[in-house]
Amino acid sequence: MSTAAASAAPAAFLSALSARLGAHRVLTEREDILPYGFDGTAALKQLPAAVAFPATTDDVAFCLRLAREHRRPVVTRGSGTGLSGGSLPLAGSLVLCLAKMDRILEVDAANLTLRAEAGAITQKIYEAADAAGLFYPPDPGSMKISTIGGNVAENSGGLRGLKYGVTRDYVMGLEVVLADGSVCWLGSKCVKDVAGYNLRDLFVGSEGTLGVVTQVLLKLLPKPAARQTLLATFTAMDAAAAAVSAIIAAKIIPCTLEFLDQKTLRCVEDFAKVGLPRDAAAILLIETDGHPAAVADEAEAIEKLCAAQGASSVKRAATPAEAVQLATARRSAFSALARLRPTTILEDVTVPRSELAGMIRAVEAIAQKHQLNIATFGHFGDGNLHPTILTDERDHAEMHRVEAAFADIVEETLKRGGTITGEHGVGLAKKPFLKRQLGDQSYELLRLVKRALDPEGLLNPGKIFD
Amino acid sequence: MSTAAASAAPAAFLSALSARLGAHRVLTEREDILPYGFDGTAALKQLPAAVAFPATTDDVAFCLRLAREHRRPVVTRGSGTGLSGGSLPLAGSLVLCLAKMDRILEVDAANLTLRAEAGAITQKIYEAADAAGLFYPPDPGSMKISTIGGNVAENSGGLRGLKYGVTRDYVMGLEVVLADGSVCWLGSKCVKDVAGYNLRDLFVGSEGTLGVVTQVLLKLLPKPAARQTLLATFTAMDAAAAAVSAIIAAKIIPCTLEFLDQKTLRCVEDFAKVGLPRDAAAILLIETDGHPAAVADEAEAIEKLCAAQGASSVKRAATPAEAVQLATARRSAFSALARLRPTTILEDVTVPRSELAGMIRAVEAIAQKHQLNIATFGHFGDGNLHPTILTDERDHAEMHRVEAAFADIVEETLKRGGTITGEHGVGLAKKPFLKRQLGDQSYELLRLVKRALDPEGLLNPGKIFD
Repeated sequence: MSTAAASAAPAAFLSALSARLGAHRVLTEREDILPYGFDGTAALKQLPAAVAFPATTDDVAFCLRLAREHRRPVVTRGSGTGLSGGSLPLAGSLVLCLAKMDRILEVDAANLTLRAEAGAITQKIYEAADAAGLFYPPDPGSMKISTIGGNVAENSGGLRGLKYGVTRDYVMGLEVVLADGSVCWLGSKCVKDVAGYNLRDLFVGSEGTLGVVTQVLLKLLPKPAARQTLLATFTAMDAAAAAVSAIIAAKIIPCTLEFLDQKTLRCVEDFAKVGLPRDAAAILLIETDGHPAAVADEAEAIEKLCAAQGASSVKRAATPAEAVQLATARRSAFSALARLRPTTILEDVTVPRSELAGMIRAVEAIAQKHQLNIATFGHFGDGNLHPTILTDERDHAEMHRVEAAFADIVEETLKRGGTITGEHGVGLAKKPFLKRQLGDQSYELLRLVKRALDPEGLLNPGKIFD
Repeated sequence: MSTAAASAAPAAFLSALSARLGAHRVLTEREDILPYGFDGTAALKQLPAAVAFPATTDDVAFCLRLAREHRRPVVTRGSGTGLSGGSLPLAGSLVLCLAKMDRILEVDAANLTLRAEAGAITQKIYEAADAAGLFYPPDPGSMKISTIGGNVAENSGGLRGLKYGVTRDYVMGLEVVLADGSVCWLGSKCVKDVAGYNLRDLFVGSEGTLGVVTQVLLKLLPKPAARQTLLATFTAMDAAAAAVSAIIAAKIIPCTLEFLDQKTLRCVEDFAKVGLPRDAAAILLIETDGHPAAVADEAEAIEKLCAAQGASSVKRAATPAEAVQLATARRSAFSALARLRPTTILEDVTVPRSELAGMIRAVEAIAQKHQLNIATFGHFGDGNLHPTILTDERDHAEMHRVEAAFADIVEETLKRGGTITGEHGVGLAKKPFLKRQLGDQSYELLRLVKRALDPEGLLNPGKIFD
């Protein structure tokens, strides 16, 4: 970034913005922009020069052209729930907040699609689909407040990834504004479309570094007819991992297969009070869905498999309300843990499922080695773990140990064929480790693509790579 | 392409190739290379300078470096079953035929993955998964002879697309050799991985224009416990289309929902003799799979829905053998039609499902307008139609009408929000129409990506765009 760009925004830039969007849609005062100076990632803060709230795709295009003219970096954000610092502003940058572009434009039941503006809240999308008897499966932990544009930018996962995949698997089309302000539509309502390169999927997960997603066309599914939630309790962590392997080996793909270690489950129980077994070493929260007969068979098989691997108990949720309560408790894991210490650093490593048990043991050993408090929960069925370091960013000595532990966890993950980030994105938090995972060739390939699409480097610069 | 590249290959180039691969792995004699001068696409032929059969990824990298040094275009191919001319050689080019790199390297039941070399036959991959009690769903019509590398290059579809998606949906990782001979691994065994841009999906469907895919890591599914095949007969085409809409509206997603018009079904019956109703205006071949109870319920619902839309009969396959026979008959549609006239031109347009009935009527009107013999079959559930023009490439007057009809069909497709190609790729056949579909901005974006990854334009030049 040039020195000019890092400086305060010139009056001409700001007045052109206000003239186009209206003064109430451009924030520049320190107290107004403060809430846009961070996202859900611990220990990262930076004020932008201004925050703009475009109302239309044309507004976004205008903002990008103006920013280019003034050589000013642009950082796009939705609700700011990201956990890798992907939407952290740069000093002097323009933040484009798409929260006002939040309309659900169409639910097309004949074609099983939903079209929405990028600022639409994920939960509202789920509800709009549900109202039409349809189902939008991706359910990131933050779905009640996250925007679909943010989900697309980070390719968010969620609790149903094992059976239903992640955000990418439901993106049929995107409207994207490119760095030069031109507008593209990528993809279509056709369930098969091989006309040209798949650039849609290039934008999914690109963290605002290649363009600004303004509209999303999503695939919906028929709603599953039945669901059953199970809670399996284990006195040993290894047994929980073995149960997961046994379930997959039995050719059962539950919709949800979540794991909480003792630290996390105690903390969640204190917070949510749903009756989780505080003495268990680990619990699995399992949901199966589909045809009632399939659900019944799978639930029974899962009970037997967990018991065979040494589960001390396997309980079925007696009512839908109880099932929702359990899922909500699991969703609260991050918030619950965040209450324990001033700073909560959430890891997002993912390993092939067969490496889960070993990986969990490795995280425990790393916590001991660096004398840190690490609680682990995650999407076990996906091999996606969230070791959560409970710390205090003001304690510099401890933060050094946190960094060292972070590096050890990454090393261990890569040794096992895993990835440094399963669903949170690279952003700033994982940037130092990306090259190590991808290797020089693939890493250079990313940079090549970035340079081709954003030659002046104005779109969310410094994220993913330098 | 430079004049130099279009000329016969220099001796130095060929001898370096032979020295590396062995003389038996480099073909240059006219009679030897003749079979590599075309693919499954009608009316396209062009001899390359040489055909090389690399045995390893390093061989491929060597070939690309050598070709670059000699500024010689490289066209990669597998079995050459493509239907858009994607693997048609250029004059003077080097054809890289990956047919000798056909090993299935690993079936990992714990992680539900299969790794294979790009030249592995799709059917063998299906069988290897099946032997492990697992399921590789994509089943392009040519799967008995097509290679997985070709499937990836074209992002091939198949008969199970409606429920299970296409090749892309099963590609977890790719080994790719880039234009400069460097080797990248894109993706991993992790079911969630958001580390950096998704370049894996950029290569899927890129038709050999961005790099050479040498290895593929595929996702497998548990094998469905039960299947049921149904054959619904209609006296009116519209009723068949309405039945498809009714099935989807009832929130049923069959695994297969295939359509044959009267011309096609008569032709298939003459060829395969499986007892298809020759007098029907159209038939639907429907398969549902999954839990036995779900299959039973869905089959019953489908029967009722078809009857309600005026099906004259709905029959269930009584045995698995009968089901296979019906599917095989459907798979023979292209071959059966190809016997009728010297030249068979297969269209591949796809529309949103809700546009199916209108699109079929439009194709009939276009056939009448241009006095052509067009038979239509396709993957109705995907909105993917294969209007097949039965013609004779030696009849120039008729071929002009074929071209005009082709353009009309494309126009009609785009008007309905469809795509010029659902599963066959752009290659040479659809190149003239791509810009019209994508619009200037998206089209330029493709070219930008191509230039970034293949700055010298040596990888399958002239395919997708000029």
